[in-house]
Amino acid sequence: MPQNRFDLETVISERDFTALGDALQNLSPSALADLIGETPIRDQAPVFRSLPREFAADVLEYLPVRSQIELLNSLEQKEAAAILDEMAPDDRTRLFDALPDDERERFLALLRPDERGVAVRFLGFPEDSVGRLATSDYVRLRPDWTIERALAHIRRYGNDSETLNVLYIIDESGKLIDVLRIRKLLLASPETKIADLMDNSFIALQAADDQETAIEAMRRSDLTALPVADEDGVLIGIVTVDDILDVAAAETTEDIHKLGGSEAFDEPYLQIALTRMVRKRAGWLVILFLGEMLTATAMGFYEAEIEKAVVLALFVPLIISSGGNSGSQAATLVVRAMALGEVFLRDWWRVMRREIFSGLILGAILGAIGFSRIALWSAFSNIYGEHWFLIALTVGVALIGIVLWGTLSGSMLPFILRRLGLDPAASSAPFVATLVDVTGLIIYFTTAIFFLRGTLL
Amino acid sequence: MPQNRFDLETVISERDFTALGDALQNLSPSALADLIGETPIRDQAPVFRSLPREFAADVLEYLPVRSQIELLNSLEQKEAAAILDEMAPDDRTRLFDALPDDERERFLALLRPDERGVAVRFLGFPEDSVGRLATSDYVRLRPDWTIERALAHIRRYGNDSETLNVLYIIDESGKLIDVLRIRKLLLASPETKIADLMDNSFIALQAADDQETAIEAMRRSDLTALPVADEDGVLIGIVTVDDILDVAAAETTEDIHKLGGSEAFDEPYLQIALTRMVRKRAGWLVILFLGEMLTATAMGFYEAEIEKAVVLALFVPLIISSGGNSGSQAATLVVRAMALGEVFLRDWWRVMRREIFSGLILGAILGAIGFSRIALWSAFSNIYGEHWFLIALTVGVALIGIVLWGTLSGSMLPFILRRLGLDPAASSAPFVATLVDVTGLIIYFTTAIFFLRGTLL
Repeated sequence: MPQNRFDLETVISERDFTALGDALQNLSPSALADLIGETPIRDQAPVFRSLPREFAADVLEYLPVRSQIELLNSLEQKEAAAILDEMAPDDRTRLFDALPDDERERFLALLRPDERGVAVRFLGFPEDSVGRLATSDYVRLRPDWTIERALAHIRRYGNDSETLNVLYIIDESGKLIDVLRIRKLLLASPETKIADLMDNSFIALQAADDQETAIEAMRRSDLTALPVADEDGVLIGIVTVDDILDVAAAETTEDIHKLGGSEAFDEPYLQIALTRMVRKRAGWLVILFLGEMLTATAMGFYEAEIEKAVVLALFVPLIISSGGNSGSQAATLVVRAMALGEVFLRDWWRVMRREIFSGLILGAILGAIGFSRIALWSAFSNIYGEHWFLIALTVGVALIGIVLWGTLSGSMLPFILRRLGLDPAASSAPFVATLVDVTGLIIYFTTAIFFLRGTLL
Repeated sequence: MPQNRFDLETVISERDFTALGDALQNLSPSALADLIGETPIRDQAPVFRSLPREFAADVLEYLPVRSQIELLNSLEQKEAAAILDEMAPDDRTRLFDALPDDERERFLALLRPDERGVAVRFLGFPEDSVGRLATSDYVRLRPDWTIERALAHIRRYGNDSETLNVLYIIDESGKLIDVLRIRKLLLASPETKIADLMDNSFIALQAADDQETAIEAMRRSDLTALPVADEDGVLIGIVTVDDILDVAAAETTEDIHKLGGSEAFDEPYLQIALTRMVRKRAGWLVILFLGEMLTATAMGFYEAEIEKAVVLALFVPLIISSGGNSGSQAATLVVRAMALGEVFLRDWWRVMRREIFSGLILGAILGAIGFSRIALWSAFSNIYGEHWFLIALTVGVALIGIVLWGTLSGSMLPFILRRLGLDPAASSAPFVATLVDVTGLIIYFTTAIFFLRGTLL
């Protein structure tokens, strides 16, 4: 795999920027961004300054937003302005988005008027909307052109386009009328008219659409770049697959963090400031802790029973954890199925039926193991006393009820959250476990009172 | 959004397959696959038979493997053979992979000899390897050609190619020497030589590489199709982004299922057979239950203490759940960071330092709340008796220790699993909770004995 490597550190220490110029021939912007990312910030600026502007803009787009800001601030105003003008509009929107208001204004003022117009427009779309991901760098073709003319047009104006894999056909009013893969143009003979290749069947995103819509649309369309239109169908930009992939990965991370019982991080684990991380984690832990305090109240309610039969206390952790485990398992499965679009709100009853069945069987399995364990121990020791059979029965039956209750709560909680307009992924394992713990205690002690009244209790 | 709809049910009930033929003009294979997927299997075959073969193969590729097999089995041998010949090699590999041995042999025998050779070759690569995803439908160019000749070649032979976005340059021995985006060809003047566009810098996958490698490489390369070479650098196929996305989504689902304490499902939640689902879930639940049984043993160990101070039992659920929650939170964060390539094995010490800090602070927060709660209740009632301060101190201090222990275990378990060559995602919330529960009890009762000896104990 002939990947060109060169030593950026040497270039920097020897201020040998012609070596850098030579190396650039064989270095992609993403590769150079990786190298730059590893050097200290004070060394980044000189390297950066020595790059051709367009290349510098490309490299910048691959750096994390934080580094982008630091770098731009370390450049002279004129240099920064030139690079900002060259940046792809979607990456620039992301950068501006991360800036405090006053800095954003300052950077915006640096832009060429036309670029500033584009930037302000894309910044005007709501956060997490498709418009925020859109770029205006794409190729527009007209239906009455021949392929030959279209290819000449691409050769001339395609250089800035973010993709040439997909081309956009517009009418005289700028309205999008079709989307063509480059494949169709390449396979058709040069004198064919664009109109003859059109099938007028395409998917267009709305600028105000949620970014999740774009993920779904891209998955279904098999295109690497989708058009974004305004309410009148006028093409205002395109969204490319790499941005969508980033959004999709970020959303999955968010889901997983929430499932783990934490607020979602907005930075990588090793980069997020410690205090910020602790704050994001403390919130849920405290809420769960407060919820879990109810277990102490519930236990207090049964203090008399525990005093009479301390043996009951021994199984409390086992009992409640079984409810928690089965519940968080069910919740996780349902949350993921929802995220993948396999399960919808209307499916709640189908899911419930499945979970009643699963819960009963899983409960029966654990109940049987629990019963056998107590029976077995009692055969060899007197640890559970003369009423071991009733204790075993209590534990076994309580387990069936608790596991069933756990799977039901765990599987239904995501539906309830979604119905309330909340994120189903908030039904984290710890959340479900906490929810099930208190009720688990009640089920357990109720079962115990039922079976042990008159003997141990 | 002009999306063409037509009523497949009417077509079927009226056997009006010419209407279908007309509709096909405006229907993409994926859209028709969706429609077919909603009709009963016995109606699918006639629709399918009426499609042009190439189109039928395209539609088939969008159906789930199970439907593919049912459909092919419902067709006559000659029809099935023709469609199998037309299928993209990568989709065909996936289909053959899902077949029992005897059926695979039968289907393989139906193929044209050249296609059979391709199929057998790709099936020869290890499961989960890049080779299994590879297709042989791509465009090869030679470095001494002009752009004009290359475009003519594409026009003539590009029809079957899975992508025309990326082109592969090979030398006379079939060795891959460069990869070009179509963009470069489109922007260069027609008389330019291919060799002049080459930079000899490209990323090639090895057929035996793990599929995860491909995800990572695609993320970095910004290409929509990566070449696959054998040990000698000879190009044997390409892998396209859609297959990679499927693999990536499947791996994330696997991770999430494991994090939820279940074996990963290989089918969507609503489709997997109930008994199969219960089996996948029961495994971990039983293992966790057996592990959790140690809590009963541990509690038995402290039975004398509980008998003397039943009040201690009241806080058991609260205490152990706090350890479990903080542990599963930490585990989830680390597992996701590993999956995203943000954290590597060598970072274990950095992670541990962060978690010691986080654990201490989080523990202190929960400890303070726990302490205050007991203090507050005691101010208004006599529920915790005269020694409420010592009890509050026990709970508070135990919480610091347990939360710290939880975050440490949770964050280090993924490292240990990875070090052992196991999947870090197996450090599920329930697994961590179970692990922490037993030790949590020991920490709690040890703290209690320390603070309460001579008073309550």
